[in-house]
Amino acid sequence: MTHTYPLLQTINSPDDLRRLNRSQLEPLSTELRAYLLDSVAKTGGHLSSNLGTVELTVALHYVLNTPYDRIVWDVGHQTYPHKILTGRRDRMHSLRQLGGLSGFPRRDESDFDTFGTAHSSTSISAALGMALASRLKGEDRHVTAVIGDGAMTAGMAFEALNNAGVADCNLLVILNDNDMSISPPVGALNRHLAKLLSGQFYAAAKNASKTVLKGAPPLWELAKRFEESAKGMVKPITLFEKFGFNYVGPIDGHDVDTLVSVLENIKQLKGPQFLHVVTKKGQGYKMAEVDPVAYHGAGKFDPAVGLAKASAPAKITFTEVFGNWLCDMGAADNRLVAITPAMREGSGMVEFEKLFPQRFFDVGIAEQHAVTFAAGLACEGLKPVVAIYSTFLQRAYDQMIHDVAIQNLPVVFALDRAGLVGSDGATHAGAYDIAFIRCIPNMSLACPADENECRQLLSTAYAQETPVAVRYPRGAGAGVAVSCALETLPFGKGEIRRTGKKVAILAFGTLLYPALQAAEKLDATVVNMRWAKPLDTELLLQIAADHEMLVSVEEGCTLGGAGSAVLEALAQANLMRPVLQLGLPDKFIEHGDPAKLMTMMGLDAAGIEAAIQARFGGLMTPV
Amino acid sequence: MTHTYPLLQTINSPDDLRRLNRSQLEPLSTELRAYLLDSVAKTGGHLSSNLGTVELTVALHYVLNTPYDRIVWDVGHQTYPHKILTGRRDRMHSLRQLGGLSGFPRRDESDFDTFGTAHSSTSISAALGMALASRLKGEDRHVTAVIGDGAMTAGMAFEALNNAGVADCNLLVILNDNDMSISPPVGALNRHLAKLLSGQFYAAAKNASKTVLKGAPPLWELAKRFEESAKGMVKPITLFEKFGFNYVGPIDGHDVDTLVSVLENIKQLKGPQFLHVVTKKGQGYKMAEVDPVAYHGAGKFDPAVGLAKASAPAKITFTEVFGNWLCDMGAADNRLVAITPAMREGSGMVEFEKLFPQRFFDVGIAEQHAVTFAAGLACEGLKPVVAIYSTFLQRAYDQMIHDVAIQNLPVVFALDRAGLVGSDGATHAGAYDIAFIRCIPNMSLACPADENECRQLLSTAYAQETPVAVRYPRGAGAGVAVSCALETLPFGKGEIRRTGKKVAILAFGTLLYPALQAAEKLDATVVNMRWAKPLDTELLLQIAADHEMLVSVEEGCTLGGAGSAVLEALAQANLMRPVLQLGLPDKFIEHGDPAKLMTMMGLDAAGIEAAIQARFGGLMTPV
Repeated sequence: MTHTYPLLQTINSPDDLRRLNRSQLEPLSTELRAYLLDSVAKTGGHLSSNLGTVELTVALHYVLNTPYDRIVWDVGHQTYPHKILTGRRDRMHSLRQLGGLSGFPRRDESDFDTFGTAHSSTSISAALGMALASRLKGEDRHVTAVIGDGAMTAGMAFEALNNAGVADCNLLVILNDNDMSISPPVGALNRHLAKLLSGQFYAAAKNASKTVLKGAPPLWELAKRFEESAKGMVKPITLFEKFGFNYVGPIDGHDVDTLVSVLENIKQLKGPQFLHVVTKKGQGYKMAEVDPVAYHGAGKFDPAVGLAKASAPAKITFTEVFGNWLCDMGAADNRLVAITPAMREGSGMVEFEKLFPQRFFDVGIAEQHAVTFAAGLACEGLKPVVAIYSTFLQRAYDQMIHDVAIQNLPVVFALDRAGLVGSDGATHAGAYDIAFIRCIPNMSLACPADENECRQLLSTAYAQETPVAVRYPRGAGAGVAVSCALETLPFGKGEIRRTGKKVAILAFGTLLYPALQAAEKLDATVVNMRWAKPLDTELLLQIAADHEMLVSVEEGCTLGGAGSAVLEALAQANLMRPVLQLGLPDKFIEHGDPAKLMTMMGLDAAGIEAAIQARFGGLMTPV
Repeated sequence: MTHTYPLLQTINSPDDLRRLNRSQLEPLSTELRAYLLDSVAKTGGHLSSNLGTVELTVALHYVLNTPYDRIVWDVGHQTYPHKILTGRRDRMHSLRQLGGLSGFPRRDESDFDTFGTAHSSTSISAALGMALASRLKGEDRHVTAVIGDGAMTAGMAFEALNNAGVADCNLLVILNDNDMSISPPVGALNRHLAKLLSGQFYAAAKNASKTVLKGAPPLWELAKRFEESAKGMVKPITLFEKFGFNYVGPIDGHDVDTLVSVLENIKQLKGPQFLHVVTKKGQGYKMAEVDPVAYHGAGKFDPAVGLAKASAPAKITFTEVFGNWLCDMGAADNRLVAITPAMREGSGMVEFEKLFPQRFFDVGIAEQHAVTFAAGLACEGLKPVVAIYSTFLQRAYDQMIHDVAIQNLPVVFALDRAGLVGSDGATHAGAYDIAFIRCIPNMSLACPADENECRQLLSTAYAQETPVAVRYPRGAGAGVAVSCALETLPFGKGEIRRTGKKVAILAFGTLLYPALQAAEKLDATVVNMRWAKPLDTELLLQIAADHEMLVSVEEGCTLGGAGSAVLEALAQANLMRPVLQLGLPDKFIEHGDPAKLMTMMGLDAAGIEAAIQARFGGLMTPV
C-alpha cells in the first residue's frame, strides 16, 4: 500500500496544525491513521493504542498551545500520533531502534514531550506538579494528563486524584477509556466506567453532543447545571466528582470535531476538570480492532495481510517456561495461587487461568496490592506465586519488605524481564533487582542460567518456607530442553560447569552461556552460581582458593549486584583475589536490539573474553 | 492514680470477653481505657489512637470469633486495647522495649495478631487475601480490616478497594474515621468524609441507630433499601459504594452497644461490607483530646499532670536541622518547594509551612504521588525538596527511579530516620536506603556525620542539577554547633579526620564519632567519607595505598551498602586490602532502646574497636 499524505506532509509542528480549518481535522486524522499504520507495520511497535488516540491527539494539539501548554501522556506508548505531529514524522522509521526514536515520550527527545513516561499511572501526579508550578510562577498555562482506564486502577493515580481534586489549579485529566489495558481490566473502577457507558446519558450525548456542546461556555455550564439538578435520572454522580473534579463525558473519542468543541469549552473552566473520552483500541484497522491484544505490541507486518503466523516453532521463552511450570505445579499442589498485576499475557498465565480460574487473581495495575494480597493469602496457608516484571517490582518494594520479608512469608516472586529488555528501553530495564532484593533480610534470589534450570529453580523456590524470587530475562535462552518434572535443586548451591586454570568466571544467570564460550578461549573455570542470595560461599571460597583471578558476570547492575556479594564474601573470609565485575554499568541503557545492546555492554562471549584479557591478560598463560 | 479493674482482670482472652453480658461492655470499656492510660503513661507509646479504639476493639472481639475470625489492624499502633484483651495485659509494661511487646501487631507475638502492620494502608489487601483464602478453603471465617481515614488516602488502599469491591467474599472494611492521621489529613477523600459526617443522615443515625439497627438483618436490609430509594435526600451515595461495597454508617465509634448491634447485623450480610465509624483520637482523656498530635506518640508522663514540658533545652535533632535549613533555603531561593507525604511534624516542616504556605505541599499518605509530583514541579524549573523517612521511601522506589532518576531531575530527598529507629522496630528501620539508592544511575547519596554537616550537605544537594538524597538518623547527633550559613561542601568528596597507622576507618555518616573514639585506642586513621555515592574514589585509593587494613562503618545494611561500594572501587582499581565491613547485619532488628541496640550491633565505640581488634588485632602494633 502506498498512501499519499497531502495534509499531513504540511504539518511539521502543531503550529502548522493550528493553521488548519476545523473541517480539515477529520481528513487529517484519516491521513494520520494511515501513516501510523504504514509506519508501525514497517518498524513494529505499539499499534492498537496509537490507532485509538489519533483524533484525541489532533484535537489536543489543535486546541492547546503546545508546547507552552503541557500534555502528559500516561504510559506513553500511545504517543506515536503525537510524535508524528510534533516534528518527528520523518524519524518514525527509526522507532524503538538503537539511536532512533523512543517508543515513549522523552524530555530529551522533544520539547513537546513534557514528561517521560512508560510505567503506568504517573501522569496525574506529574501534571499536578506542573499545574501548581504554573500557578506559583504566575503563568497561565494549561496542563493536561491523558490516562487510560487500565492505568487508573493503580494506587498512585488515586493518590494524585485525591490530591488534585482539592487543588486550586487548571488541571485537566482526560480518561481515555478503551476498556482494555494490556490484559482486560478488572475491578470496581472498571465496572463503574462500564455503567457510565451503558447509561442513557452516553447514548444521548453521543448524538446530541455536537449541537449541545458547540455553544459558548455559558451554554455548556447551563447544560451541566441542568444535568446536576436532574441527577439520578440522567446520569449518576461519578467517582471522579467524589474526588472534587468537574466530570464531563463520556464523549466519543473518534469524533475529532466534538473533541475540539469540548476541549475549547473546558479550557474556559477553572479548577480540576475530568473529561471521559471513549476510544477503541485499534480503531480504523479491522484486524487490530478484532484482536487489540495481538496488535498491542506488534512486530513488523504487512498491513494488507496482518500479523504473519510464526512459520517455524520459535524457541521456548522463559515466560512460557514459567507458564508451563505454573500449570504443572498448580495441578500438583492445590495450595498454589497465582497473582498478576495486569500482566496475564505478558507473564504467561493465560493457560493457568483457564485451568484454575479460582486460583488465578489478576488484580489490575496494582503492584503494591498484588504483593500484600499475596502476603494475606500466604498467612492462611496458601502458596502464592506473584508473577511480576522485575521493573514493576520496584512499585511493590515496600510491600515486599514490610509485608512479605519481615513476616518471612512463603511467597514466590517470578521476575520476568530481568536484565535488559530491548526496544522498551531504560524505563523497563530489570537491571536493579539483584541489588535491591539481596539487601533485604529473609529474601532469597535465584538466577537460573537456562530454561530447564528456570523450571527447577521455580520448583525450588516454591518448596521453601520463606520468600524467594526467581529472576529470568525477556525472550528465549540457550535452548536447553525443559524437563516435565517438578524436581528441585539444592537451595543456595551453585555448580562448577567447566574446570580451567587461573581464572574462574562466576556466572549469575543466563550469561553463563556466553561465559562458557569465553572460557573455552581462555581455559577458564566457569561456575554456575545460580543464587545471588544466599550466595554459595562454600563453593566460592573453594574456587577462590584454587584460582588467581575471579570474574563475576550478571545481567544486572554491578553496583551492589551479585558481584558485590562475591566481594563481600571474600572480604569477610579475608581471602584476597583480584575480581573483575562484569554486568550493567551505572547508567541508564537506551532502547535497541537486545543482542546489539548486549554486545555494546560487553556481555556477549567476545565482550566477556575481551574484558578478561584486558584486565588479566598479562597474568594468563596462552591456551 | 490507682485504678482497680474488676472486670478487666477477668479477661484473659476474648473468650472471657464473650462470656460477658452486653450491659457489661460499657463498664469494661471504661476500665480498659483507664488501664490503657495508666499503662502508656508508664511506658510511653501511642496514646491518642488507642484511646480512640477502645470500644471498637471490645465490640469486634465480642461479636467476632477471634482468632478464627481475622482482624487486620491497619498501621497497628492502635492495637494496645487489642493486646490487653488478647492475653497480653500483664506484659504492657514492656511495651516497645527490648525483648518486650511490640508497639504493633506481630504474627509471632500472638495468634490474635493475624498480620503484622506498621506502615499504613496494607490492611485491606491483606484482609482480602485472607478472605479469598477462606473461600478457597471452604471456611466460613469472617475477615475484617480496620483502617483509619489517613491511611485510606494511600494508593494501595485504593488498589485494594478496587479489587475487593468486586470480590465474592466476606470482607468487612471498617473505616475508623478520626479526622486526623499524624498530620491533619488532606485531599478529596477527607473532604468527602467530612461531608458524610456533616449530613443530616449522621445526626439522625446517631440518635436513631440504637432502635433502628437493633432489629434482625431483614429490618436492617429494609432500612437500607428505603435509604437507597430516597438517595439524594437522605444521604449521598458514598465513594465506597462506587467501589462496590455496601456502605453502612457513619456510626458513633464510642457507643459500644451500637457497635455490637451493627457488627452483628453486618455479620449476616454477604459480599464486601464497609462500615464507617467515627471516633475521637484521645477519647476520654481530656489532654489528649485537646492535643492529639502531642499524645500521638508520647513519652512517659503523669496522667494527672499530662506531658511534662522539657526542662532543659534538648540537643537539636537532625529533624530540626532539616527544618531550619528548609526555612533558610526557602527564604534564599523562592524556587524551593517542600513536599511531605503526611509527615509535617515528624519531618520538621511546621515552621516552613507557616512561612511559605504556598510552597508547602502535604499530599497525605501518598509517597508514590509525592515523588512524581515533585518530578512534575522540577520539570517546570522549581526546586523540590521531598522530606520522607528512609523506610517510607521504599513506597516510592519506582517513582524515584522512573520519574526522577531516569529524567535526571534535580529533586532533593531528605531522608529522616535513616538507620535504626529504636522503639518502632524492624518495620520502620531505615536500614536499606544506601543499598537501594546507590544502585540507581544518576542518583547521589550523602551521609552527613553530624548536625552541621547535615545542613551543609543539604545545601550541597540543593545546589546540584541532579537528584540527590541526604540521609540522617532519628534523634540527635554528636552535638556539633550548626552554622546559619548556606554554604556547600565539595560534591562527592570526603575528608581525613584523623591520621593514624595501618588501619583506616572509612565512616559513612554519624558513626564517624564512635569511629573516632575507637581510633584513639587503635591509632587508626579515620576518614569521613560523607558520600555513599559518588564514592570519593580518589581519596579511598590514596588511603588504601597508605594503609594495610580498611574498615567501613555505616548505620545501614552491609549487604550492598557503602562498604560494598568501597569493595567495588578497590576491586576495580585492583588494589587488594583486607576490608572489614561494619554495619547492620542481614536480619531484621527488633524494637528497643536505640543506644542499647547500637551496642548490640557492635556499632558503638567499644564495638567498633572490638571488631577491629578481633579481625586485625594480630596485625597491629600496640599503641
